[in-house]
Order: sequence, then structure tokens, then C-alpha cells
Amino acid sequence: MKILVVNAGSSSLKYQLIDMDTETVLAKGGCERIGLDGAKLVHKANGKETVILSPQPTHNESIALVLKVLTDPEVGVIKSMDEIDAVGHRVVHSGETFDKTVLATADTLKEVEKLSDLAPLHNPANLIGIKACQAAMPSTPMAMVFDTAFHATIPAHAYMYGIAYEDYEQYKIRKYGFHGTSHKFVSQEAAKYLGREGDATFKVVTCHLGNGSSISAVKGGKCIDTSMGFTPLAGVSMGTRSGDIDPAVVEYLCTKKKMSAEDCMTYLNKKGGMAGISGVSSDFRDLVKAKDEGNARATLALDMFSYQCKKFVGSYAAAMGGVDCIVFTAGVGENTDCVRKDVCSDLEFLGIKLDEQKNLERNNGKIREISTPDSKVKVLVIPTNEELVIARETLELL
Amino acid sequence: MKILVVNAGSSSLKYQLIDMDTETVLAKGGCERIGLDGAKLVHKANGKETVILSPQPTHNESIALVLKVLTDPEVGVIKSMDEIDAVGHRVVHSGETFDKTVLATADTLKEVEKLSDLAPLHNPANLIGIKACQAAMPSTPMAMVFDTAFHATIPAHAYMYGIAYEDYEQYKIRKYGFHGTSHKFVSQEAAKYLGREGDATFKVVTCHLGNGSSISAVKGGKCIDTSMGFTPLAGVSMGTRSGDIDPAVVEYLCTKKKMSAEDCMTYLNKKGGMAGISGVSSDFRDLVKAKDEGNARATLALDMFSYQCKKFVGSYAAAMGGVDCIVFTAGVGENTDCVRKDVCSDLEFLGIKLDEQKNLERNNGKIREISTPDSKVKVLVIPTNEELVIARETLELL
Repeated sequence: MKILVVNAGSSSLKYQLIDMDTETVLAKGGCERIGLDGAKLVHKANGKETVILSPQPTHNESIALVLKVLTDPEVGVIKSMDEIDAVGHRVVHSGETFDKTVLATADTLKEVEKLSDLAPLHNPANLIGIKACQAAMPSTPMAMVFDTAFHATIPAHAYMYGIAYEDYEQYKIRKYGFHGTSHKFVSQEAAKYLGREGDATFKVVTCHLGNGSSISAVKGGKCIDTSMGFTPLAGVSMGTRSGDIDPAVVEYLCTKKKMSAEDCMTYLNKKGGMAGISGVSSDFRDLVKAKDEGNARATLALDMFSYQCKKFVGSYAAAMGGVDCIVFTAGVGENTDCVRKDVCSDLEFLGIKLDEQKNLERNNGKIREISTPDSKVKVLVIPTNEELVIARETLELL
Repeated sequence: MKILVVNAGSSSLKYQLIDMDTETVLAKGGCERIGLDGAKLVHKANGKETVILSPQPTHNESIALVLKVLTDPEVGVIKSMDEIDAVGHRVVHSGETFDKTVLATADTLKEVEKLSDLAPLHNPANLIGIKACQAAMPSTPMAMVFDTAFHATIPAHAYMYGIAYEDYEQYKIRKYGFHGTSHKFVSQEAAKYLGREGDATFKVVTCHLGNGSSISAVKGGKCIDTSMGFTPLAGVSMGTRSGDIDPAVVEYLCTKKKMSAEDCMTYLNKKGGMAGISGVSSDFRDLVKAKDEGNARATLALDMFSYQCKKFVGSYAAAMGGVDCIVFTAGVGENTDCVRKDVCSDLEFLGIKLDEQKNLERNNGKIREISTPDSKVKVLVIPTNEELVIARETLELL
């Protein structure tokens, strides 16, 4: 069984072809600058990288190119596209319509289209990718795996905002959460690793820390809260995103900086976070380097980030009535040891004891246990694999 | 030593005359509708209430009226205003200028005036009250006790928002926190009650829950974090205030409801919170009644409130590296037992064990310990007394 995983953006399309019998990536790559000058495809398979410069006026040409390279006698990995048993598409927003992976049909696609208001940058692009795939592979089943679906189990008292109830009803303004496939994957891997699969009392806080970051509380395999909100702007301060701020700051910024509310969103999404505070970079590697060199604002940015993450760990422990495991994942979570150290510092009262030596060991792509043997709470570093979750979900649906 | 405590609003002025030798309230009352038709003064002393209907075109007439009634042979409590040794004024915002109570002088008043941008509804009104008092009692020392000053010890990694650093510098956009006098008072009372005064390791989470609510982390007598932010809109959902929301919701509401950012602030301050969610009331007594009658939205509002408070308790325990004591205070904190119960539920892993019977006992105006004797974390109900703190601060300054 081979599954193609597709993640389509407005001018890009990433793919992985996964052999599900062994969960091995046969090939992966991406199209860039779709609809623009200088479009190209980068394809990696069998340890070789192939770059194809070729016009891709629409996603249709991109998909055709992907299928061509996958079946290429020289750099491809399959003989014909019939070997692709199914396609799993990443779709960002399921709104309140879907709480799990669904087949892409005329009906479900129409529903996803209706949700475009909630994710104007993402859902329409995801849809274009799906339709292009359907056109190229009309008889291959297509699944839509939503970034928000894992959070569908969050109860109302956690997803509702303190706004007029009618505006929740009419505009569907509530917490949705994102990075769902990652939170699902690492929480499941943690349960497996600790022998707690199917244990309804297993409580894990999953810290997906990257350029975008979110933290979730997962109890018995079900997400009960998450730090991102109505949009991916909420939660901890991120690479360039502000994270949570007093909502009155939006109005104050608009007034003081003579911005529209829309401009303010661009400002909070692009000019805030680690980059805005540090003035150095949104990249944690740069921040750590600058901190080591004594840069006060880079130090402040890192301190803010770790402190905010630590507070989410505490709040989610409270939300779940305890915590058994903390998982760090994604670029920063997997690779930035000082963030993990600072998040876990002074949490012995929760039963968290970090093994500072193990914490310093390098990411090896495998699950690493970085708490001490006597730590009541296990602290794990788990490389996330969103494509694999999408493929697994697709397989499960079929 | 007698101290007059004054809390001046734009069209109101509340006062208490306190004998500091015994910390007894000799008289208290308030002027309403200053500058409007139908102005009146309500005065309470010696168990008697006096209402005086009298025009009060400005705060000057109000102060004159207060001094007249305080020295009235029949309903007054002092012979002459010379008996008032000092006046303690509540001032909302100290910005980053003051971190403690200061004497009202030409210089300090000018500084407070400069901060009006940060509290446009409050600081100018506070100033009018101070100036009216100074005019009436030119030789009496006046202290300014700031609502934000207790939070001045919050470190930068906790008070900074993830916005461009330059905008923090230029516009002073950061977390300030409010209800400082209350958080200070109850955290001090808790330390006294538990014999931990001056103990730098004493960790208390103070929950000031009323129509406006804020929660603070106080370690060794110093505030290290608080839930309100740049304005009192942030934190938990309140009577009519939204509390924390994804900042992107502001823009979405503006677009969908065709509101300006300014209108959106009014909406989030006046139409949100418990009132907005429940559609019943902003008053917790009404909400509890409606919940008992099976009202689903009142139940949701209460669940949201308790859940959000519980998360702050957990996050502040993490921020302090543990917690020794939880304090509930203010209207809701002192009187709404189901909120206290829900906030403390399932927190045994933190060492919190509520005595459900003690929790149900009625507020008697005194400190009540409502945790079980074997609870590692003490849970206390402490009636707040912001006027007394203002008077104490004033006394200390002199």
C-alpha cells in the first residue's frame, strides 16, 4: 500500500510518497513558485536530489510534474501512478464541520470551501491542490486530513471565548487550535513508548515548538485544550507572531501607529514574537547564538518564550488534574536544548526532573527520554512526522 | 492618627475615614453624579446612613460636602478637618514611573498626568479628586496609592508582550496589572495567617474575583505575574469583559460586525464575559441561580470562568516553582462557593485538598481556611480591604 501525501499552499505543493507496509518514505519533494516565473520542482528519492525547472502555471501542471517524476524510469520510485493507492491531503481548517479525516467528495469539498472564511490563506489553496490531484488521478481515493480535527474533542468551556454567545453562533469565533496532526502523532508515540496506549488516564502535555508553536493537553488520547486559538496567532510568542496579548493592545496599536485592524494583524503575525523582541532573528539558532554573545534582547526573547511555555505546562497539568509526560517536538522542541531546560526548570514540584546531560544529547531522529530515571513525569523528545500521520489517517479511512 | 481614603472617578467619589490606631472605619460614603443633575452624597457612620441631595458641579463641591458631613455635629465623626492627618488617594496607573506609593506634589502629579494615555478613564478623574482635596486641605499630606504599583516587581520576561521592542519602548505597551492593593493586602494577610511573614519562599496565588477579576503569583511578598495586562480587559473572562482572546478575533469582529477597533473595545469590555456568554447576567449570584435552574449558557459561563481560573492557578504554580497557598478574595471569591470548589477540583496533584463543608460556610468578614487540615496547600478566603491598604500605605509613607 503506497500513499501520496500532499500539502498544497497557494504557490507551493509539498509531497511524500510513503510505503505504508514499512512506513518508509520512498520519495519526497516540493513544487515552488506555482503560477509564478521560475517555478521548479525539487525531488528527493534513493538518496538523490533532482531539480526540474519547468513552468507550472497552475497546480494542475505541478501535480502532473510530481506524477511524472515519481514514475520516471531514472529518478522515480514507482512504475505507474496506479501504484498510488490513495492520496492524503493536508487541509488546515475543519471548522466545526469535521472532527476527523474524511474522503474528498463533491459534498465534503463544498463544506471545506465554506470554511475558507476561517482560513482564507490556507483552505482555498488546499482545495486547489485536491482538485488538481483529482483531475490527474480520477479513480484514486483522496482523504482530507485536517490540522484542526484532533482538537475537536476540546470541550466548550475551553474553546469558547468570553464574547457575546450570538457572535460565536453567527461567526463561529472560538478556539480551534492547529498543528493537530503533530500533537496527535507525538501524543500517540509517547503513549506507545511508555506502554500507556489506550489508557484513559494518561496525561501528556505536547509542546510543538517551531517557527509556529503550540502546546496541547492530551488526556487519554483526546485533546482537551491547546494554546493556539481562533487563528495560529494565539498562544506563546513565536518566530514572528506575537502570541497572546491583551486584546486592548490591538486597538492601542491601531490608534498609536495609525494602522487599520487588518494591518495590525500583519504586524502581529510578521513583526512580533522572537524577531520583534530580539531585533535579531526569528530563528532560535540565531537567538541562542546572540544570547551566548550577551545580547540582552535575544536573551529576553528566549526567556519570554520558555516562561510562556512553562506556564502552559502548568496550566495544562491543572486542566488535566496532573501530568505524566511532557513531549517536546518540532524544530525548536527537538533541537533547542536550552528551551527544554528552561521550560522544565523548577518544576520538581510537578514531578519533573530533567537529566541535564541527556537533554544536551543531539537529536537523532528517534524518541529520546531526557528525564531522570526517578522523574515521576517523563520528559520526551519525539521527532514529529506530520506526513506520516496524514498517511496513517488516510490508510485508516480506507 | 486618622486617614481619609479617597477614590475619585469621573462622576463619583468614594471615601472612608479610618482610625489607624485601631484600623477602624469611622465613616464611609460616596458622592454620585458629580457634574450631573441629581447629585447626592450617601454617608454612613455610627450605624446610621445619611443622604444629602446637593448640587456638585465639580469635585471641589463634592470634597467640601464630604468634609462638611465628616465634621457635622450630628452625623459626623470628627470635630474639625484638622483631625485628618493625611489623605490616601487611589490612583489607577503608575505606568513605569512609580513602583510605590508617593506623596502628591506638583512634580508627581505632573507625572501621573503624563500617564493618562494609559488609563484615560481613570487617571484624569483620580487627579481631579486629588486637586480638589488639596484645594480644600492645603496643609494635609496627600499620598497616591497606585493600583498597578504592587505589580512593579514583575520581571520583564513576564510583562513583555511579543510585539516589536521599539513599540514597547515608544508606547510603553506591556503588562501592568491591576487590583494591586488587593493582591498586596490578601497576600500579606495570608503570610501573616500562616506565620510566613518575610519568608522569601512563601508562594501564594491570589485570586481577586469580582465583577473584574485578576489572579496574581506572589512569591516572598513580591508579585511575579498577574493575569490582567496592559489594560484590565485581559486575563480571565469577567462580568462583562472578554478576558484573553486570540488577538486576531479583534480584527475578525471589526470586519464581520463592521466595527471600528475602538467600538470593538467597548464591545469586549461591556458585552462580553459572563454576561455575553450566559445572556443572563454579569452577576454571579444570577448565574448560579440560572445554573441551578438548568440554564445551559449560565452553566457554560461559570464553567469557563472556573476553568480559566484553574489554569491560572496551575500556570502560576509553575511560574513560582510550586505553591503554598491559594487565596480567594473580592465579591465572587469571597461569596461564590461553587467557583472556589470548581477552581480547586482535581488539583490534589498540586497538594490542594478542599474541605467541601468549610467551603460552604458563609462569609463572615474574617479569614477562613477552607482546605482540609492535611492539605499541603492552604486554601484561604480573605475578605479584601483596598481602602485599608491605601490607608496603611499612606501611614507608612508619612
